[in-house]
Amino acid sequence: MVLDFDAVIRGGTVVTSGGVARTDIGIRDGRIAALAVGLTAERVIDAGGLLVLPGGVDTHVHLDQPGTGPSEMSDDFDTGTASAAAGGTTTIVSFAWQPRGGSLKETVEDYHRRAAKARIDYSFHLTITDPTPKVLEEELPPLVESGCRSVKVFMTYDGVGLNDAQLIETLAASRKAGALVCVHAEHHGLIEYLSKRLVAAGLTAPKYHPWAKPALVEREAIGRIAAIAEMLDVPIQIFHVSCPETAAEVARFRAQGLKIWAETCPQYLAFTAEDLDRPGFEGAKFIFGPPARSASDTEGLWHYLRDGTLGIISSDHSPMNFDSPRGKKVAGEDASFDQVPNGIPGLAARLPIAFHEGVVKGRIDLETFVDLVATRPARLFGLAPRKGAIAIGADADLVLWDPDATQVLTLAGQHHGGDYTPYEGREVRGRVVSTYLRGEAVFANGRVIGPPGEGRFLARGPYPEIAPRGVFPIPFNPVDGTLVV
Amino acid sequence: MVLDFDAVIRGGTVVTSGGVARTDIGIRDGRIAALAVGLTAERVIDAGGLLVLPGGVDTHVHLDQPGTGPSEMSDDFDTGTASAAAGGTTTIVSFAWQPRGGSLKETVEDYHRRAAKARIDYSFHLTITDPTPKVLEEELPPLVESGCRSVKVFMTYDGVGLNDAQLIETLAASRKAGALVCVHAEHHGLIEYLSKRLVAAGLTAPKYHPWAKPALVEREAIGRIAAIAEMLDVPIQIFHVSCPETAAEVARFRAQGLKIWAETCPQYLAFTAEDLDRPGFEGAKFIFGPPARSASDTEGLWHYLRDGTLGIISSDHSPMNFDSPRGKKVAGEDASFDQVPNGIPGLAARLPIAFHEGVVKGRIDLETFVDLVATRPARLFGLAPRKGAIAIGADADLVLWDPDATQVLTLAGQHHGGDYTPYEGREVRGRVVSTYLRGEAVFANGRVIGPPGEGRFLARGPYPEIAPRGVFPIPFNPVDGTLVV
Amino acid sequence: MVLDFDAVIRGGTVVTSGGVARTDIGIRDGRIAALAVGLTAERVIDAGGLLVLPGGVDTHVHLDQPGTGPSEMSDDFDTGTASAAAGGTTTIVSFAWQPRGGSLKETVEDYHRRAAKARIDYSFHLTITDPTPKVLEEELPPLVESGCRSVKVFMTYDGVGLNDAQLIETLAASRKAGALVCVHAEHHGLIEYLSKRLVAAGLTAPKYHPWAKPALVEREAIGRIAAIAEMLDVPIQIFHVSCPETAAEVARFRAQGLKIWAETCPQYLAFTAEDLDRPGFEGAKFIFGPPARSASDTEGLWHYLRDGTLGIISSDHSPMNFDSPRGKKVAGEDASFDQVPNGIPGLAARLPIAFHEGVVKGRIDLETFVDLVATRPARLFGLAPRKGAIAIGADADLVLWDPDATQVLTLAGQHHGGDYTPYEGREVRGRVVSTYLRGEAVFANGRVIGPPGEGRFLARGPYPEIAPRGVFPIPFNPVDGTLVV
Amino acid sequence: MVLDFDAVIRGGTVVTSGGVARTDIGIRDGRIAALAVGLTAERVIDAGGLLVLPGGVDTHVHLDQPGTGPSEMSDDFDTGTASAAAGGTTTIVSFAWQPRGGSLKETVEDYHRRAAKARIDYSFHLTITDPTPKVLEEELPPLVESGCRSVKVFMTYDGVGLNDAQLIETLAASRKAGALVCVHAEHHGLIEYLSKRLVAAGLTAPKYHPWAKPALVEREAIGRIAAIAEMLDVPIQIFHVSCPETAAEVARFRAQGLKIWAETCPQYLAFTAEDLDRPGFEGAKFIFGPPARSASDTEGLWHYLRDGTLGIISSDHSPMNFDSPRGKKVAGEDASFDQVPNGIPGLAARLPIAFHEGVVKGRIDLETFVDLVATRPARLFGLAPRKGAIAIGADADLVLWDPDATQVLTLAGQHHGGDYTPYEGREVRGRVVSTYLRGEAVFANGRVIGPPGEGRFLARGPYPEIAPRGVFPIPFNPVDGTLVV
Repeated sequence: MVLDFDAVIRGGTVVTSGGVARTDIGIRDGRIAALAVGLTAERVIDAGGLLVLPGGVDTHVHLDQPGTGPSEMSDDFDTGTASAAAGGTTTIVSFAWQPRGGSLKETVEDYHRRAAKARIDYSFHLTITDPTPKVLEEELPPLVESGCRSVKVFMTYDGVGLNDAQLIETLAASRKAGALVCVHAEHHGLIEYLSKRLVAAGLTAPKYHPWAKPALVEREAIGRIAAIAEMLDVPIQIFHVSCPETAAEVARFRAQGLKIWAETCPQYLAFTAEDLDRPGFEGAKFIFGPPARSASDTEGLWHYLRDGTLGIISSDHSPMNFDSPRGKKVAGEDASFDQVPNGIPGLAARLPIAFHEGVVKGRIDLETFVDLVATRPARLFGLAPRKGAIAIGADADLVLWDPDATQVLTLAGQHHGGDYTPYEGREVRGRVVSTYLRGEAVFANGRVIGPPGEGRFLARGPYPEIAPRGVFPIPFNPVDGTLVV
Repeated sequence: MVLDFDAVIRGGTVVTSGGVARTDIGIRDGRIAALAVGLTAERVIDAGGLLVLPGGVDTHVHLDQPGTGPSEMSDDFDTGTASAAAGGTTTIVSFAWQPRGGSLKETVEDYHRRAAKARIDYSFHLTITDPTPKVLEEELPPLVESGCRSVKVFMTYDGVGLNDAQLIETLAASRKAGALVCVHAEHHGLIEYLSKRLVAAGLTAPKYHPWAKPALVEREAIGRIAAIAEMLDVPIQIFHVSCPETAAEVARFRAQGLKIWAETCPQYLAFTAEDLDRPGFEGAKFIFGPPARSASDTEGLWHYLRDGTLGIISSDHSPMNFDSPRGKKVAGEDASFDQVPNGIPGLAARLPIAFHEGVVKGRIDLETFVDLVATRPARLFGLAPRKGAIAIGADADLVLWDPDATQVLTLAGQHHGGDYTPYEGREVRGRVVSTYLRGEAVFANGRVIGPPGEGRFLARGPYPEIAPRGVFPIPFNPVDGTLVV
Repeated sequence: MVLDFDAVIRGGTVVTSGGVARTDIGIRDGRIAALAVGLTAERVIDAGGLLVLPGGVDTHVHLDQPGTGPSEMSDDFDTGTASAAAGGTTTIVSFAWQPRGGSLKETVEDYHRRAAKARIDYSFHLTITDPTPKVLEEELPPLVESGCRSVKVFMTYDGVGLNDAQLIETLAASRKAGALVCVHAEHHGLIEYLSKRLVAAGLTAPKYHPWAKPALVEREAIGRIAAIAEMLDVPIQIFHVSCPETAAEVARFRAQGLKIWAETCPQYLAFTAEDLDRPGFEGAKFIFGPPARSASDTEGLWHYLRDGTLGIISSDHSPMNFDSPRGKKVAGEDASFDQVPNGIPGLAARLPIAFHEGVVKGRIDLETFVDLVATRPARLFGLAPRKGAIAIGADADLVLWDPDATQVLTLAGQHHGGDYTPYEGREVRGRVVSTYLRGEAVFANGRVIGPPGEGRFLARGPYPEIAPRGVFPIPFNPVDGTLVV
Repeated sequence: MVLDFDAVIRGGTVVTSGGVARTDIGIRDGRIAALAVGLTAERVIDAGGLLVLPGGVDTHVHLDQPGTGPSEMSDDFDTGTASAAAGGTTTIVSFAWQPRGGSLKETVEDYHRRAAKARIDYSFHLTITDPTPKVLEEELPPLVESGCRSVKVFMTYDGVGLNDAQLIETLAASRKAGALVCVHAEHHGLIEYLSKRLVAAGLTAPKYHPWAKPALVEREAIGRIAAIAEMLDVPIQIFHVSCPETAAEVARFRAQGLKIWAETCPQYLAFTAEDLDRPGFEGAKFIFGPPARSASDTEGLWHYLRDGTLGIISSDHSPMNFDSPRGKKVAGEDASFDQVPNGIPGLAARLPIAFHEGVVKGRIDLETFVDLVATRPARLFGLAPRKGAIAIGADADLVLWDPDATQVLTLAGQHHGGDYTPYEGREVRGRVVSTYLRGEAVFANGRVIGPPGEGRFLARGPYPEIAPRGVFPIPFNPVDGTLVV
């Protein structure tokens, strides 16, 4: 028989969440057209000695957000997706961030314009900061229908966080519209209070940032959002779980049958609170929320990554400059920790950190690694089967990965905007050799070569993972207003 | 030797939380002056064949509150304390209820005036509905100092419930002032939402009241207030736990070492949700919050009463008329459940229900019964050693109790204001024969004989039960603003 | 390019644990050689309109065991594997069952002979019933090395169950040899006692079998074996979890980081205790241990199947005749339940029941179905990547599955030995159209066509899933006798 | 009126579990005849400035046991009860320890003879080491009837520990006879295995004793005995809980409604594993089982003492010489830890340690202290109302306690047999001034003055605390063999 391919990746060891296999990959029209040994084409990409992974899927990425203050992001969709490509990620779900008082519809339109520069594929979460009836009833349903099947809500941060009534209305509207709800779960009031009190006591250095956000603020918030989700039967995803105490809360509600999922991020696996105690203002480079915790917390997170409570490692890429009046130093070099914008860049470091801390250190196997960084995020967010897997018909989003190469992470190597990476100088084993988006190299030989504008919007259709359960604590569906027999 | 007494209670079986003993009781100057067999005095009260209990201490009683709407209470301190006396209760802690915008100081002064009619002794919880800096910083400390060492906060009810920031500030101020914080713990937002949705669906009958307040609204609220209390190191008391799921949350935090206590009430031991489904508007007689639940919930509460997680049975007496435009029918006879004021009268039924459901049915012993209705409430609220026990020097607050007599509970027998009792027609074993306040009969022969005005205000001094632990999740005391070494 | 195949499966929808894709499958030399659309070969198998699944992997199968009494199995490796093929299963892990006093080495040799008749591939668990030093130290290591990398221990059943000291020695030896330990976890003593007492009370009917094995006997046994496994750092698999209470125990230890996995079986998803109350002796057809429980238990198991606590659905195929003096009626038709041999046939019903109860009823998706019946069992037991997946290089073990066809389960359709199936008359949606082992049809058109002897022994090499953690509760590795720094 | 007393204790501050009161105590005929201020008698005991406590009740005391090997106890009922008196304890429950193969009836008769030397009152637990049908069916019921209403079982120790079948039969027989079952709950097999392996590795010093008994051996054993107790509906008391992990298991089963209680001992509040690492063989002075653990474990125990999960502090007095071939050095000075007999003397140190670590350090209040060391043990073991309280009609067992005096614990001050106390040199605040048994001084001025033979056997009648619940996991009472409707 005869099969023609645009390109063949030959001789690699293909890793999927389901197994590891020696096979070539035939690519046609940007998709994986064949898996077999002995494929040929004019264009052959030699993967000998390398792993071939599905392109990473990063479902928690902030790019080109206007910000809620004078700070600004150091990445737009051009630089951000360059960094993604350099880090082996070919799909992101970024945020369309409604400004308070603004239209969600116009927000999404605006982000479609901003994302026109993307070098890799993308979709949007709908960040709702102002859930007016108009937004929830008129704007949300068609936007979800148009392919943005996830809503993001904050339980903290001034000007962004929703109160309980707003959370309830937003979750109810999301259930109706058919969207998964992603949650930044921290207790706003306690953080505000602690920050104020710490600053009043003169405890203002970056190292006090974790003091203002002890684990119990996460525990509380998960208890709260889980109660709402249980009552309304809404599937939810808990973002950036920082410690096992928090994961245990998630596991508790999963065991009750709730559709609740959770992720953690590389920064919770790579850093501890001690990193915030570096000299001078250096600690501010590690200010993100929830904060880094202890080494034993890190170890505990791996239990929950292995048992599936934490099913995704995302980056929570929130890039900003360090040495800039519109970045970490927006309030000056001596600013108290609570004046320092939260967030770090991390798109390009995600796979290297997860691989090194997970696979190299023997905590997880290759299949689980791929599951955590590509397959499960794709499935949970409705991007499968096109994304997150190496399978016939899937987009030929592929990463050639050298599992034996050692690299030192540097700013230059991250290929993102901004003037620092918190991972500077960190040595890891495992490295992206090249990244392919729909069959075309977007990163190779240490250079980002995918041009801006190549990325496409991914409209996500309905999918069963996030269908509601139809189970309520009372014989009444409060969202639809109907009796449940 | 010679001992003179004003009176002697002779021949009874004295029950305390520590044991059961056959002894006479010598009373002098309103206090228990002697326990011994063979005491004599001119005035001898025959307790032969009866139990002698310490007067009941009811630490959750609403009397003469202006209300937050057009409804009005059917008991002032005259009728309310008459009912208490009839039910074997000699001490109440009632609420001094700050109106929004009002002064807490003036509120307390006002309640001192209202309580001048009391027939039994009383103290006040400080219900804070508007925690302005003036209230918390200026008014609260001297009021606590004056003997009102407990603060009450609501997490739900419009115009009364506090938001998170207010809860935090109120708990912090209470810690500083040295007050225990009592909490009505239900998730406001979910209740509001559910009520609205149920009503919109035409599910308005009283029986839908429990639907609007499923157990998870309690679970959530306890998780939240416990996080705040843990963070600020504030001792708290959870009011009216309605089901084992809620008690389990309390137990969870107790096991972590928090100073968290909890009570339940007779209505959660005597009624189920089915009582709300009586014909017509009858179910409204059983509308209280949190609501009655199932028979298995009731049974589960006894586990937690036995193991000490629930240490107190209080009445949550919240009296109002049934057939009145200022009572249950304030919104008419066809009002939806959410328009019906919450609350039932229960002061006089507390001991009979606890005795019958507990002791008679073999779930607890006599000592535990006394502990739950008198000793522990007295100790937790700083009324010991004067109240809640039969001990030398304690006030001669005593109840002669016939453990074998059967009675049918009726409105007349409750001796309170208002036109109904939810316990109407209920047959129980065990009955108050007579009640003594500081040595004087206030109830006997089926009649309340203690005159209005005999009750005294009980100023409560500092006591160790509610001293903070000095333990914080971070090495910082946020209330004082000091480092914890 | 040109690719030659022995056969091509064309037009099907291929389901793996990682996703669903429309692709043909090229088969060469019994392996999957290509996945692509448009493959051709002389031999084309039309899968249009059908699902193509990886052949089922059933890791809990009893065949041709001599039995521990007068009863006998109604399946040897011929009939048993015929049933497997008919049910879409292409790999089993069966038991090499050491008789007490016998040599484990000789046992395995014997089972290699017995299994020579197998129609599908197989491996062995080493059932250790007599863990003498000779067995553990001399025989076990080379047997594990030879590819039997799993040990089975019983905590109950006379003549089979191990006592604590034996369990400890066996787990320690298994760790040293590199074997996963599978556990039948029930508290022997309580079962014995309850059985004896029930029978003494005349409660002998089949329906009393579940009374003799309440859920707490599983809870207890898991607590015990988990303590041993934690102490010795031994990976374990809990067999046949029957209810959520048991699964919760597993989840508890998983959250602590232990390497503990668990399975359930179709009988716990399809039957309830009521099935044991059928007229006459019919209930004996449903006697297996642990027993069927309630409908709400069944529902609860699905939570744990979804959250990964239960990762495998195996059959626990334990076949015997019903109407036979060497089967269920070994002790006569009026035998008390404890005289009835435990076990039911189920190899062929496994996929149909899991599909119907899981996928058709909306409890799990297709990928999870495949994961539970093929991929995860293969991975946990070291059969991956050859078995359990549709991937290049994997054995071409494939099932064509009609997701829309409805079938009524009958004895004839099970294709196993014995005179009954407990699933008789049960209607399910989903049906095996044909089954392929290494590229050759073993079942098609309703007939088993794979000949006896075609099955091959699968020697399993070491694999990371079951590598110990190197973590001990004390700074000492008791198995190796070395300090842990 | 006139009241005559044999003696009056005047001017003290009387502490009971229910409160603290200033009152005199009138004593007549060895009982408390009056509580009042102003009592007089010829014999007046001045308690000015002192606390008056109920005499301590120590429900876990080993005296004059033949031992199971060449070691011997360093206390008989003479010296042991002298130490008790010196430590403020006036009642003990000691063990009548059946030798394997021996008659329980004869054992008890023997112990009645041995106990004839007692200086304080006593009762017996029935230690069953050989639960033959004769023992359980014939001997046990009349012995329980005769007043020994508690059975002791061991889950570990060679020659003493019972296997599962024996535990079940013993618990069932105890339920029938009406006895509470006290449990030494440790997993025998793991301890044996660990000990053997540690010794084989040359880790033989006393400090390795705790390594052989990690917390999980307690956790496991509680899970097991709780399952049996739940199944048979038998009230149980867990002895010597050593750490919060173990207490949490108890709390878990209490929350399910089981009648399960637990105690801890002073050694778990005063020592840590570090004490076993003293130079040379000194560490052997601290070998007891379960072992001392960490400082954070100690702190955690107080949580559970406060919340009632741990209701009793007993001594587990198990006295032996240190420097003796029949004591700790029975196997020589270089004996491995597993050859060292477990146990320490502690009768006299119980109240001082509990007071100092508890009350002085602010962890519990006075009432709780009395509850833990006197009232609750008396009630749980059926000694109330005669023992454990200061109440009319109770035995005049009283302790004058100086809460402000500081003492250094020494061997001489313990007044027991044997050549050492593990508390040697420990400074504590609080001290016994004098001890009274039934109104007569048994300890005063630093000297034991109660003569041998003054102690009386306390026959304990049936009492409600330990009545079974009548609740079974199945609708069948397996002990009685009856259906439960």
